[in-house]
Amino acid sequence: MPDIRAFFPFWDALSPEHREDLLRHCQPRRFEKGDVILPYKGQCLGLMLVQSGQFRAFILSDSGKEVTLYRLYDLDICLFSASCVMNNIQFDIQIEAEKDTRALLVPSSLYQRLIQQSIDMANYTNQLMASRFSDVMWILEQVLFKSMDCRLAQVLLEHAASQGSSDLVLTHEALARDLGSAREVVTRMLKYFREEELLELTRGRIRLLDEGRLQKIAAG
Amino acid sequence: MPDIRAFFPFWDALSPEHREDLLRHCQPRRFEKGDVILPYKGQCLGLMLVQSGQFRAFILSDSGKEVTLYRLYDLDICLFSASCVMNNIQFDIQIEAEKDTRALLVPSSLYQRLIQQSIDMANYTNQLMASRFSDVMWILEQVLFKSMDCRLAQVLLEHAASQGSSDLVLTHEALARDLGSAREVVTRMLKYFREEELLELTRGRIRLLDEGRLQKIAAG
Repeated sequence: MPDIRAFFPFWDALSPEHREDLLRHCQPRRFEKGDVILPYKGQCLGLMLVQSGQFRAFILSDSGKEVTLYRLYDLDICLFSASCVMNNIQFDIQIEAEKDTRALLVPSSLYQRLIQQSIDMANYTNQLMASRFSDVMWILEQVLFKSMDCRLAQVLLEHAASQGSSDLVLTHEALARDLGSAREVVTRMLKYFREEELLELTRGRIRLLDEGRLQKIAAG
Repeated sequence: MPDIRAFFPFWDALSPEHREDLLRHCQPRRFEKGDVILPYKGQCLGLMLVQSGQFRAFILSDSGKEVTLYRLYDLDICLFSASCVMNNIQFDIQIEAEKDTRALLVPSSLYQRLIQQSIDMANYTNQLMASRFSDVMWILEQVLFKSMDCRLAQVLLEHAASQGSSDLVLTHEALARDLGSAREVVTRMLKYFREEELLELTRGRIRLLDEGRLQKIAAG
């Protein structure tokens, strides 16, 4: 189980006092699959460091429609469980444990003090927010322009047909060329497909797991 | 014309050296309506402080469809013209001058040094990013669940009909109650309507400017 040092690449640059505060005050937490992390009983929890398991962040419409924004895995940091500490966050997201999860909680009071005293912590917070911002921009682009998932599914099925196999020897670069897109975009969509258990990714290979669902996606 | 001090609420807390760097190295820039601020000729500009005028941030689909993400007005700070300085920003937005605009540029090299040396600047960057993140979340919610604009337009037209006037005596709180929504959400949508020149807002009053377009929005 990773300890708190593993979550902060700048650990050694923190002051001895801050390191001690983190070691002393971080709290081990366990969540069962389905537990709600945000909103949490009206409390402001703080930074949640995922040691093992999985969180899912989503938004909920008035009518109860859910849209997944991103997932957090081992060694990820859940920032928005500390959103009460940050100014200018004017939206509500929900976060739940999607698997049984072990985490370390940095309480909001300590976290608030750290970002006011440690420039490394302040800038790291910035990086975390930029990552989540990027996740949400990606979702927005999918929702607005949603052709990429459809086109990628089409191209994958074409390769399966031409190779006569669902175990494709195919790089992300090659797919990006097929699609006239950037490799990063293709990699991201492939990872999304993997999370949806549509395919498996190994180096230089893509194995299709559910051609039926891919065909539905390809149909738009 | 506001000078650079007006943009940083923590100006007095900056070190004398940092204040002098900002005063000496910020560059006045003028943009004409339609000028592109991002991407800017392959260069990494830096923080752009809007003294007067208007910027519009948007994303562009492969097929050229534009979606406005937010607008920046006098005394706003354009963060993403400095996105090259920030880690983990994995998306491309475009920014253009929507009116003739005067701005101050804090060059990226100076800005980068400031966020590494000034905890106030690092945390302020965080606040700016959280504001833009909130803007984008709002757009995402509109796109996903887009009932609020429709419902608000309906309620405004109902009030106009019942008051026999397009000059409505109506508070945001009252509208929020009509809609079973939060006042902040209603205020935000009203401001969006104002930007679209559908209505004017004054204290306790809302004047409808274009009932024809509101009717189209109300129709969904």
